[in-house]
Amino acid sequence: MSFSVHGLAVSRGIAIGRAVLVGRVDVAHYFIDASQVEAEIDRVRRGRNAVVDELQRLLADMPKDAPHELAPLLDVHLMLLQDDDLTEGVKHWIRDRLYNAEWALTTQLEAISRQFDEMEDEYLRERKADLEQVVQRVLQRMSGTAVPIGDDARTAPAVARVKRRKSDQQAQLDGMLDDNTDVPLILVAHDLAPADMLQFKRSVFAGFVTDVGGKTSHTAIVARSMDIPAVVGARAASQLVRQDDWVIVDGDAGIMLVDPSPIILAEYGFKQRQGELERGRLTRLRHTPSITLDGQKIELLANIEMPEDAPAALAAGAVGVGLFRSEFLFMGRHGKLPDEEEQYLAYRAAVEGMQGLPVTVRTVDIGADKPLDHHAKVTKEDDYLNPALGLRAIRWSLADPAMFLTQLRAILRAAAHGQLNMMIPMLAHASEIHQTLALIEQARAELDARGAVYGPVKLGAMIEIPAAALTLRMFLKYFDFLSIGTNDLIQYTLAIDRADESVAHLYDPAHPAVLRLVADTIVQSQAQGKAVSVCGEMAGDASFTRLLLGLGLRSFSMHPSQILAVKQEVLRSDTLKLTAWAQLVLEAEDPAELLVQNAAKSH
Amino acid sequence: MSFSVHGLAVSRGIAIGRAVLVGRVDVAHYFIDASQVEAEIDRVRRGRNAVVDELQRLLADMPKDAPHELAPLLDVHLMLLQDDDLTEGVKHWIRDRLYNAEWALTTQLEAISRQFDEMEDEYLRERKADLEQVVQRVLQRMSGTAVPIGDDARTAPAVARVKRRKSDQQAQLDGMLDDNTDVPLILVAHDLAPADMLQFKRSVFAGFVTDVGGKTSHTAIVARSMDIPAVVGARAASQLVRQDDWVIVDGDAGIMLVDPSPIILAEYGFKQRQGELERGRLTRLRHTPSITLDGQKIELLANIEMPEDAPAALAAGAVGVGLFRSEFLFMGRHGKLPDEEEQYLAYRAAVEGMQGLPVTVRTVDIGADKPLDHHAKVTKEDDYLNPALGLRAIRWSLADPAMFLTQLRAILRAAAHGQLNMMIPMLAHASEIHQTLALIEQARAELDARGAVYGPVKLGAMIEIPAAALTLRMFLKYFDFLSIGTNDLIQYTLAIDRADESVAHLYDPAHPAVLRLVADTIVQSQAQGKAVSVCGEMAGDASFTRLLLGLGLRSFSMHPSQILAVKQEVLRSDTLKLTAWAQLVLEAEDPAELLVQNAAKSH
Repeated sequence: MSFSVHGLAVSRGIAIGRAVLVGRVDVAHYFIDASQVEAEIDRVRRGRNAVVDELQRLLADMPKDAPHELAPLLDVHLMLLQDDDLTEGVKHWIRDRLYNAEWALTTQLEAISRQFDEMEDEYLRERKADLEQVVQRVLQRMSGTAVPIGDDARTAPAVARVKRRKSDQQAQLDGMLDDNTDVPLILVAHDLAPADMLQFKRSVFAGFVTDVGGKTSHTAIVARSMDIPAVVGARAASQLVRQDDWVIVDGDAGIMLVDPSPIILAEYGFKQRQGELERGRLTRLRHTPSITLDGQKIELLANIEMPEDAPAALAAGAVGVGLFRSEFLFMGRHGKLPDEEEQYLAYRAAVEGMQGLPVTVRTVDIGADKPLDHHAKVTKEDDYLNPALGLRAIRWSLADPAMFLTQLRAILRAAAHGQLNMMIPMLAHASEIHQTLALIEQARAELDARGAVYGPVKLGAMIEIPAAALTLRMFLKYFDFLSIGTNDLIQYTLAIDRADESVAHLYDPAHPAVLRLVADTIVQSQAQGKAVSVCGEMAGDASFTRLLLGLGLRSFSMHPSQILAVKQEVLRSDTLKLTAWAQLVLEAEDPAELLVQNAAKSH
Repeated sequence: MSFSVHGLAVSRGIAIGRAVLVGRVDVAHYFIDASQVEAEIDRVRRGRNAVVDELQRLLADMPKDAPHELAPLLDVHLMLLQDDDLTEGVKHWIRDRLYNAEWALTTQLEAISRQFDEMEDEYLRERKADLEQVVQRVLQRMSGTAVPIGDDARTAPAVARVKRRKSDQQAQLDGMLDDNTDVPLILVAHDLAPADMLQFKRSVFAGFVTDVGGKTSHTAIVARSMDIPAVVGARAASQLVRQDDWVIVDGDAGIMLVDPSPIILAEYGFKQRQGELERGRLTRLRHTPSITLDGQKIELLANIEMPEDAPAALAAGAVGVGLFRSEFLFMGRHGKLPDEEEQYLAYRAAVEGMQGLPVTVRTVDIGADKPLDHHAKVTKEDDYLNPALGLRAIRWSLADPAMFLTQLRAILRAAAHGQLNMMIPMLAHASEIHQTLALIEQARAELDARGAVYGPVKLGAMIEIPAAALTLRMFLKYFDFLSIGTNDLIQYTLAIDRADESVAHLYDPAHPAVLRLVADTIVQSQAQGKAVSVCGEMAGDASFTRLLLGLGLRSFSMHPSQILAVKQEVLRSDTLKLTAWAQLVLEAEDPAELLVQNAAKSH
């Protein structure tokens, strides 16, 4: 039965393929090689046997004062563990789908859970918790033997494909698409762990859909960095889709279509090809200098996530990296932070990858929807806390100076290998600025003390908290350059969490208050002769290019895939005319109207 | 063993007494009359028997395709239900403590849970979940017969006291305090439901301590409205304290001291008496007009929570109510919203209670740490959501126009009985203003259509989102007066949730960006001849009185208990001198320093 699920459009394009479900965030998901099947089955068997032994030992050694219902409860759990449904199902997922052991076990747990879910009485349905607990125990016992995250072995069988039975309609669809060879796979999950995303980044998926997450969730960021269509915040998508369903991911509209009719499928196939043509057309602009009609040179920079993104930035014609998000080094590491050497090598690889062009590294900006593993626990305690207003970014760095100094040393060392700038996120207070500057001095002193080589860096601050945009004089006194993080600046200025769909319609980049803060930051920076850029999503949204040019902006940093579309706008713009118009927009009660009119006039 | 627990100081004063623990938020807590004991025990018995019958019926009717471990699991649950520990314990709490049935059942559940918690193996500890589930089922079966919340029967035995065994030290402490008659009781809980707080408001407690909550949580607000010392956000306080422990609540420092030594106790007894003396001294200022040394008349208004607070406002010398928070009518109602008549009577009672003085009613401002019952569920789903940036206040009102119109009609009708103003919280967008004005027109039309009597109201807006403070021209065009909500304005401007203790130190009312927005709002309102006041906590904090006077503020609204201390500052101030000094503070990179210097100079 056809139906569609709506979410947030976070990475553009169309993908068509078969759904692959990933059930749990806290276990690893990867495809194994066919030769590993028996070893993987054995891994589950050993994990289960360890738990059986353990429960039997607990039963035998039960203390006298233990609540006396414990023994019969453990007996039932032993029964659950040795259930055939569980063991046979797990073997199926490993043998026929090449899932790793943990993925197979949790997939089968979910299949059995559905049996419980079908019980009419809620009380009976809730009994599945016992099953979940024994499986959890097995997972723990297995974890010691699991292939560690990030290990190269995990990335090898990236071509794993699934053999499927076909219904008549499926056969027809298969025929239209691919003659049943190499069907693209679409990953559908409640949520994806950073570790899984990093894994899948090097894997086979043609599209991503998750139930939760916002535009700046790691799923969205990685999908964009891979330029793969993605929809997040799609609510119950992972509950509604079944393994192997045909799905279309429309990353432009934020929709997933499930089990589409042949007509819909043909329409989306057409759209997909149109998109590819448009990209091809823009590609011709790659070597065109980014200059307005009136001769203003506009700097178009790339936002990247990891050193491996540098080639894509260069290919898109970026003249540097305006934002290298260092978070990904810190994510999905189960509490173990990257050491100085690992960070140094990553920053150095980014600088070298950009072949002499400047690279701006932002110190770690984790928080909100990008928690670290050991960090997430803190926020779970209290439902009323607001992660976006909590211990994130520089606040966290200053709260853990050893960690921050490690990052600062790594950045300073990498600066010996090219033009490297350092940028600090989420600053708002004078005291934070002073502490940050002191720690940078300390990092230099530590490097001097051990005779390490390091280079000079320009120091910048993100303007992304209203308090910062309202105290620019202070920021311009201490920093070499500013970069406006529009995503957070809009969120705080309007008090709107755009990941919260009940208020997402009020998230308005063209709100006069937002435009005023952006305009002030540009004007005051330029008045002081300091460089200023925008690195939030507004910079990569071609519908805002003219307005930002009119407000005086000359440096934009965005995802590589957006650079050519923005360049196209730049080439058509006359900043002399736009300046006067931008002042009108700034004065308007509802600037969005003027923006729409201008777009209609100019195209 | 003595120890102390730190939290947030949310309601001033010192309380000394015995701890009474309230375990769960989702059940009612109240004291029963001694005559009700047997009926209450019977209520638990019937609930339990209903669940036993039900589980036996489920066992008998188990469908063929049910997972086959279900039957043995249900058998164990039947055992748990009929356990003596559970039934005897419950009787104890009802007979000896006069707890209502639900409170007794959950208190005993917690006692047994502790047995599980002492097991060495985590797996065994987790088995308490089964016990929790059967107790939950019993609670559900009992709920039908419980005394409904708000029923007068619940408030009757407000003098219930607990008979206690005494250790030697306890006897000594008892002797020092009260010769063992009528020991004050201190309520300690993980969290308190709005319904419980309303209940306890009419009850016996001398102090409140909760593990969670912020300065604007309902616990904090109600405690302040009762003028009873309270500490919230005290983390694991409810885990660390045992029933009947002697505790001191220091609502000035935000500390709870448990099992204090006689020396500490004597010291706090002294502080408690000093506080009472100071209050007595200020009381003499009650009838003194609030005028500065240079003859400026300063309006001191009260913030109230419910009509019953009006006498306290008058007693403190308030010349009106600057903020009547209407939320309390909406809280703890299990999803049933107050109808027009109920609201009308409440607003009318407030206006009449103020005896001709003006009253400003703020339309409902629920959200963040004050969720409604049926609202809370929405935010639990996703740990990454930020309630403070979500569907609160006017956003929620506009999303549910029928509810909003009901409130608007009630306010308009109450305005026929006195000077009533209406104020809208959390506005930030032009579209919200237009929708609000249209709905007020619609409410008037609806009242006209049915020939109802209503009065004129002045219409005001809260300035509490940075976007609002940055678009004052628009607000001054549509509203008769503005009121600055400093709590939220600071939170959003700095991106700091002060309930989050990891960043609470960065919550700084004197941040230059905050002062600039406050100053702009005052100056621009006065330039347009519109009334402006501050109703956030800054207005009631005497250490900010001089600065706000210097910035031009002439109207302050605060908790009644703060009015006399602020008046004392007003009487000592010369606004001519303060104006020049305030400009220096506005220009400073770190205004807090200047504030401290000034305080030192002037006292």
